[in-house]
Amino acid sequence: MKRVDVYDTTLRDGCQAEGVAFSVEDKLRIAQKLDQVGVAYIEGGWPNETNPRDREFFQRAADMSWQTARITAFGSTRRGNINVEDDSQLQDLLASRAPVITIFGKSWDFHATEVLRVSLDENLQMIEDSIAYLKAHREEVMFDAEHFFDGYKADAAYALECLRAAQRGGADALVLCDTNGGSLPDEIREIVETVAAECQIALGIHCHNDAGLAVANSMAAVQAGCSQVQGTINGYGERSGNANLCVIIPNLELKMDTVCLPEGQLTEITELAHFVSEIANLPADTRQPYVGASAFAHKGGMHVNAVLKEPSSFEHVEPETVGNSRRILVSDYSGSSTIVHKLQRIWPDLQRDDPLVATVLEQVKNLEKSGYEFDAAEATFELLARRLKEGLLPPFDLHGYRITVYKADEGSEPYSEATLKVAVGDREVHTAGEGTGPVNALDNALRKALTELFPKLEELSLVDYKVRVLRADEGTEAAVRVLVQTADAEDSWGTVGVHENIIEASWQAVVDSLIYGLLKNGG
Amino acid sequence: MKRVDVYDTTLRDGCQAEGVAFSVEDKLRIAQKLDQVGVAYIEGGWPNETNPRDREFFQRAADMSWQTARITAFGSTRRGNINVEDDSQLQDLLASRAPVITIFGKSWDFHATEVLRVSLDENLQMIEDSIAYLKAHREEVMFDAEHFFDGYKADAAYALECLRAAQRGGADALVLCDTNGGSLPDEIREIVETVAAECQIALGIHCHNDAGLAVANSMAAVQAGCSQVQGTINGYGERSGNANLCVIIPNLELKMDTVCLPEGQLTEITELAHFVSEIANLPADTRQPYVGASAFAHKGGMHVNAVLKEPSSFEHVEPETVGNSRRILVSDYSGSSTIVHKLQRIWPDLQRDDPLVATVLEQVKNLEKSGYEFDAAEATFELLARRLKEGLLPPFDLHGYRITVYKADEGSEPYSEATLKVAVGDREVHTAGEGTGPVNALDNALRKALTELFPKLEELSLVDYKVRVLRADEGTEAAVRVLVQTADAEDSWGTVGVHENIIEASWQAVVDSLIYGLLKNGG
Repeated sequence: MKRVDVYDTTLRDGCQAEGVAFSVEDKLRIAQKLDQVGVAYIEGGWPNETNPRDREFFQRAADMSWQTARITAFGSTRRGNINVEDDSQLQDLLASRAPVITIFGKSWDFHATEVLRVSLDENLQMIEDSIAYLKAHREEVMFDAEHFFDGYKADAAYALECLRAAQRGGADALVLCDTNGGSLPDEIREIVETVAAECQIALGIHCHNDAGLAVANSMAAVQAGCSQVQGTINGYGERSGNANLCVIIPNLELKMDTVCLPEGQLTEITELAHFVSEIANLPADTRQPYVGASAFAHKGGMHVNAVLKEPSSFEHVEPETVGNSRRILVSDYSGSSTIVHKLQRIWPDLQRDDPLVATVLEQVKNLEKSGYEFDAAEATFELLARRLKEGLLPPFDLHGYRITVYKADEGSEPYSEATLKVAVGDREVHTAGEGTGPVNALDNALRKALTELFPKLEELSLVDYKVRVLRADEGTEAAVRVLVQTADAEDSWGTVGVHENIIEASWQAVVDSLIYGLLKNGG
Repeated sequence: MKRVDVYDTTLRDGCQAEGVAFSVEDKLRIAQKLDQVGVAYIEGGWPNETNPRDREFFQRAADMSWQTARITAFGSTRRGNINVEDDSQLQDLLASRAPVITIFGKSWDFHATEVLRVSLDENLQMIEDSIAYLKAHREEVMFDAEHFFDGYKADAAYALECLRAAQRGGADALVLCDTNGGSLPDEIREIVETVAAECQIALGIHCHNDAGLAVANSMAAVQAGCSQVQGTINGYGERSGNANLCVIIPNLELKMDTVCLPEGQLTEITELAHFVSEIANLPADTRQPYVGASAFAHKGGMHVNAVLKEPSSFEHVEPETVGNSRRILVSDYSGSSTIVHKLQRIWPDLQRDDPLVATVLEQVKNLEKSGYEFDAAEATFELLARRLKEGLLPPFDLHGYRITVYKADEGSEPYSEATLKVAVGDREVHTAGEGTGPVNALDNALRKALTELFPKLEELSLVDYKVRVLRADEGTEAAVRVLVQTADAEDSWGTVGVHENIIEASWQAVVDSLIYGLLKNGG
């Protein structure tokens, strides 16, 4: 069976997408998730002086441990006519402490002479020198041949010379890039076959989707000899996006007898796709093959009958193979197999026919209808399930809150204050807090009220706060979904709240996050 | 030069998409637009007794005149073991008055015997009879071979027998369907080549996108001999959608030397895509190849330089060929060339070395550092530029606002109220508003205060409101970016605000949106 290394560039090329901008915290969370799912390489960013966030990412990643993935830093060859030791950008790559480095260089003659304004020979030297220098300091170095297919079409001999320069420098892999996304599968196949015959080291493929062919092109390249596939989760990337790993990985594993992930991990890909779109704060593409909410959704009576008689009529693969589930459209939302999957994470011995499944499913469906989403809010889901199964009661009751935001005039800063009354048993606390904004003021007041009674709360910190406007076409009347991520010394968990009033939505998510923190600490 | 007939099924198979439901009026408008653009066939629906809207569509379409397109009705072969004259569904097709009829039938042995529960011979007879009967009443009749590729893989001889039965019946074209969307381009190519050698009439291809390959599969089929391509606008369709004509048509015309539309009509395809998504009331897929708003959008300073030097670096085709246009995104990677481009949209004669460029660039960079983002906020950008160039003054001054959100206890709904004082010249207005949440209350109070003085504001409506938390790792203290989209009768514009306090960020964006609306109306 063939093996292909998955090289994820969501955190680098994916960030070129319009509307995508990850914080360092976001990047680390995505990287950990990718590592759990089992990709081979995680390209974390370009750690040069204009990207301080990427620099911080690599420093923090270097102090963490990784199971399957190798953290990879991205950069370019040295500039023209200077020594590698004097190139600040190569120094930045080494300073990143990333165990793997990928650098891109020109392989299209025109780009060397007209964009970089160096001679064709100097360009070859830049490639060889830079790879050799990095290779002296790192075990694994790859070369990204930018514009390779267009370069090959313009001057095949020179494009191949560029690859040979990288090979002479000691590159561990040569990645062929269809940078403007305009190539066709037949061209890709033919060119990769030629390159494979000429070069002796591993080949990778990096496609863009400008002609809607990034998936087909990546697969053609694998058939023709590439053993590494680059792409992004959900196909995020500039213009029409990068090759979508959420489609390529299932295609290769289920249809082309190729191993991409550790055994059993393909079922994680639907959750991975949703996780990344939540962190990116972009609506999930419901139509996305394999992982989209509509990918196995069936409308129309005739189809539904045929699906029940013989699923392969309208399902090319079993939805469970990719962690998705069949939906018969009447019930627009989660199916029971999804719920079983989630409940078994809490209670591993739970049976598929446990009556809890139906009870939770009904509640979850109702919540989903009003805009809740549990993929990035596993703590809210667990509290809901425990409430239904174990009769879990909240540790405190709200006896009212009031929030005020006051701004005196054009030039002054607004002032935010919250007052709050909560009761624990028969003890009532009435207090106030202030903050940078109304939600922060409420959060501060709540912690003030509860910390006295639950000192463990001091250990919890709110590490992430996201707001998504639902039904955005209703303007400022639209409902909002708030996702909160909270951490203590050991781990972190997500909670969710939905309401037309952002204060109330935030309140729900913050309250759940604190309750979960108390419970997990045995409170 | 090769010619391919475009067969649009947006109005039939496209309606199987989750969230798509067209009225008869919608269908007629889309059909007229498709006819103007110049497709060969418009499949309008299935005019049987369960689809009264489709019946009405065909009756109304029959009384209209069409330039390039032939209106086509869709149905199935007769049921098993009855005469064609007694099959109500075939009668419905004739009653539709559509000049072209397409019927589907089984070509997968299993589906004939297990789903339809007829013998293999009876299935062949159903196909031949039905085609022959319709052909006696209509000039053009096509046969859709449902599940053809899976059927062929299961029993090639029988699948081909089904096609021969249709051919015997007098079909004008045989359409090969990859109904569950699971086939790969190489399989499609090989099977189409075999069929083309066996059959003497025109072949069509009908693909679904379950493996993300519908575009590649359709193109492989055309290369292998199909002269008709079926698909939908924007790829609408059940599950992961149908083959996307907005990608296939440009690919065939620009990359495969194939004519699909009347000369000069390819430039209409971007507008067609947006028109259909508007009618479907679905958000346009901004990343869609060729026709998406991001398809030719460039972020990143290095890329922008390369695009301006040599567009083919990052553009596989010229955006104008498909009626789209290049966008340079103002973003945290932006340099002066992006600013010049944006300023020239406001003042077309502005020179690259105008001192305004440096002044605006400095301001934009500072704002970007604090989290502003102008990609979707061109109105805020324009106000900023006009302030710097023309000394534009705001039409009103804020003399203070106060917002209160109050929730009495666990079970009650929160109440939101805003008070506001603004001055226009020497006139001061002090008023109050309420709303679903604090921002909505402030928005309502502001409109109440200003509409009296600027009646034009009544024409403006807030159509979109988005919130993004920046530096989310700071929890509820994080800064937020608010994007607002506002419209009047003619057009719409985006504005942005950033602050740690969501109320203040929203205030900035809402205020800019109203000022811009007043200015553009000559206020």
